[in-house]
Amino acid sequence: MAVTFADIETACELIKGALVPTPCLPSRTLSDIAGAQVFLKFENLQYTGAFKERGALVKLASLDPRERAAGVAAMSAGNHAQAVAYHAHRLGIDATIVMPKGTPQVKAQNTQRLGAKVVLEGDSVEAAAARAHDIARERGMTFVHPFDDEKIIVGQGTMAVEMLTDFPDLDVIVVPIGGGGLISGVAVAAKAIKPAIEVLGVQAALYPAMYQAIKGLPTKSGGRTIAEGIAVTSVGEYTRSIVARLVDDIVLVGEEQLEYAVQLLLEIEKTVVEGAGAAALAAVLAHPERFAGHRVGLILSGGNIDMRILSSVIMRRLVRNGQLVRLRVEIDDTPGTLARVSEIIGSTGANILEVYHQRAFSNLPVKSADLDVVLETRDTGHVRDIMDRLAAVGFKSVLLGNETVTSSV
Amino acid sequence: MAVTFADIETACELIKGALVPTPCLPSRTLSDIAGAQVFLKFENLQYTGAFKERGALVKLASLDPRERAAGVAAMSAGNHAQAVAYHAHRLGIDATIVMPKGTPQVKAQNTQRLGAKVVLEGDSVEAAAARAHDIARERGMTFVHPFDDEKIIVGQGTMAVEMLTDFPDLDVIVVPIGGGGLISGVAVAAKAIKPAIEVLGVQAALYPAMYQAIKGLPTKSGGRTIAEGIAVTSVGEYTRSIVARLVDDIVLVGEEQLEYAVQLLLEIEKTVVEGAGAAALAAVLAHPERFAGHRVGLILSGGNIDMRILSSVIMRRLVRNGQLVRLRVEIDDTPGTLARVSEIIGSTGANILEVYHQRAFSNLPVKSADLDVVLETRDTGHVRDIMDRLAAVGFKSVLLGNETVTSSV
Repeated sequence: MAVTFADIETACELIKGALVPTPCLPSRTLSDIAGAQVFLKFENLQYTGAFKERGALVKLASLDPRERAAGVAAMSAGNHAQAVAYHAHRLGIDATIVMPKGTPQVKAQNTQRLGAKVVLEGDSVEAAAARAHDIARERGMTFVHPFDDEKIIVGQGTMAVEMLTDFPDLDVIVVPIGGGGLISGVAVAAKAIKPAIEVLGVQAALYPAMYQAIKGLPTKSGGRTIAEGIAVTSVGEYTRSIVARLVDDIVLVGEEQLEYAVQLLLEIEKTVVEGAGAAALAAVLAHPERFAGHRVGLILSGGNIDMRILSSVIMRRLVRNGQLVRLRVEIDDTPGTLARVSEIIGSTGANILEVYHQRAFSNLPVKSADLDVVLETRDTGHVRDIMDRLAAVGFKSVLLGNETVTSSV
Repeated sequence: MAVTFADIETACELIKGALVPTPCLPSRTLSDIAGAQVFLKFENLQYTGAFKERGALVKLASLDPRERAAGVAAMSAGNHAQAVAYHAHRLGIDATIVMPKGTPQVKAQNTQRLGAKVVLEGDSVEAAAARAHDIARERGMTFVHPFDDEKIIVGQGTMAVEMLTDFPDLDVIVVPIGGGGLISGVAVAAKAIKPAIEVLGVQAALYPAMYQAIKGLPTKSGGRTIAEGIAVTSVGEYTRSIVARLVDDIVLVGEEQLEYAVQLLLEIEKTVVEGAGAAALAAVLAHPERFAGHRVGLILSGGNIDMRILSSVIMRRLVRNGQLVRLRVEIDDTPGTLARVSEIIGSTGANILEVYHQRAFSNLPVKSADLDVVLETRDTGHVRDIMDRLAAVGFKSVLLGNETVTSSV
């Protein structure tokens, strides 16, 4: 078995009209920030919000009539679930998706709405996958693997063809790696079209399974990552061999870098990506020397981020930028003091969001108190101005919260 | 003076290479929701994040060498400022932008970074505009009006040419109206290309200046709107006459509809729009009967939304969806009670974010207390489940917060 470029070219014809030929656009601002020429492939604009449809469609379309009639099973709590559900339904194939217990109900509902039967079973991803294999075996269904399947890899490879058709001059394509399906397809296609091109993988530092596999390191991963779409603990066999053969290197990015990349894409590109979808940009920002002056294609692989996470990402960035601060002001605990402090803060144009008085837990003398205020401010200079004005009339204040803010003021 | 389609066609040539030919894409999910065929013009993907560059560039390019040497002045706290700054700098023209005092520093900085001189003066938009006119007069500069200028209108009209080139079959184009520059240009171009097309304006209900002007109603507007980009209190003369002649109708949308449209575009289209940029979608959702079955082009006019506002929009939507709730539980104020309540809540998979004990302000007997908990939940069914389980062991609870949530559970 081998995935060939000819297979991928055939798949490019197959997907026409059934998938969104997502835009690939240069970004001037990100290019300025990165010191490279940055091009973004907006795979987050697929109908189900991620590239997974490519592989799922090619796999499903490859089934013979008997296999189609028997239906398919898959395991996924994420983008693969929606991709299989949607295209199976389009092709008139019954799909059963096993999701681990505790999967957010909205994901199960979305997958059902796309036409699949959803089974919530298994306390872990591994247990759910075992259950999906069982279901497939019991009912004579085809199991649709999320990455370690040549048809899946062929499908994902179509993306590289689109990118290099739009921008043949790319020097490097940067690809997020979970199980390795996407980068395998991209590497086969890109190296066939342009042998000199570099294909670079990115993994979350907490889940470096492919990195470890390729470098011969012991496999070890875990922890809470914003990039749950690529938090895969064991890589595929097919994908591992293709990555070993064709991928130039793999870099790791930390959670803070992923979070920053999500925020930059939101603020600058006006586009919503999930953590995994921001990994390629995170890699470029983390390793600018590798990309300096090059034409770099970044795959924004998906946009299905939990809105709570997105909101937190925004708020944390505001805190880092000094636009949302918590200030502790030492006051006399007497009538009128809050009014005086508020007046000073308000006169600078800051907006007071929350106020707390700390009495019992204060270290101050009994007639004093700590007044904690949460403020909307313009930037760190504005915060400094507020603290100076308070100090000028005798109110000592300190900035609370994360170290980044404390040290940057 | 008149704005002609020939002028707009000439402008289409002029802007090539200098502006982003923004994508115009169909949206299947929004089409399903709206019961119409929805096409989105992503004008939020312009370099400075809004359509204003079109008019600014055409105006600036029209200046003769003497005018260019003398420079330009403008007043804006928003997208017009960045558009003028950027294209003036590109063309080697000095630009001075007056912004009202209290304009967020980041906006002033962004405008400076794009190459303009920024003057923070005037306690209101009107005062700042007067100052910009004064500066222009004193220094012999050309004043670049944000909308009431035929070159500006010509520039904005180029957008309709792009939309109808991509999708000639559109039945209606829905356009946000502030001062009326965008809709004037769009109407001239669209009606010239396709006389049967409908051009529909949208205003925020709090700022219906053009609606009132056209309907002969007294002018009255004001209040806090999320769509500050179209919160214009008096319309232009040129724009008013073009709108009266060519625009089929104007509809008004409320703040809640604008907010919902911002959230939908974020969640479904993975795209960030400001309040004004969501107005066209808000109009379609508010008046579905007007659009049923039609091919509807919606202009997403800009994406420069304050990240704090965006975060609030997301959070408020979570509250409406029952994914973020505040529950008041009536408890005995004894050791161990919090642990029992927490255990029940945790067993349903809900995450506890905040806990408050209300004692002094409680209406309950002195040995009882109100325990307020803020929870992350999956949906309203999950919230009901939590309340039922608490009730089963004797804890009465009520849902606090906005009426929408209380009534929907």
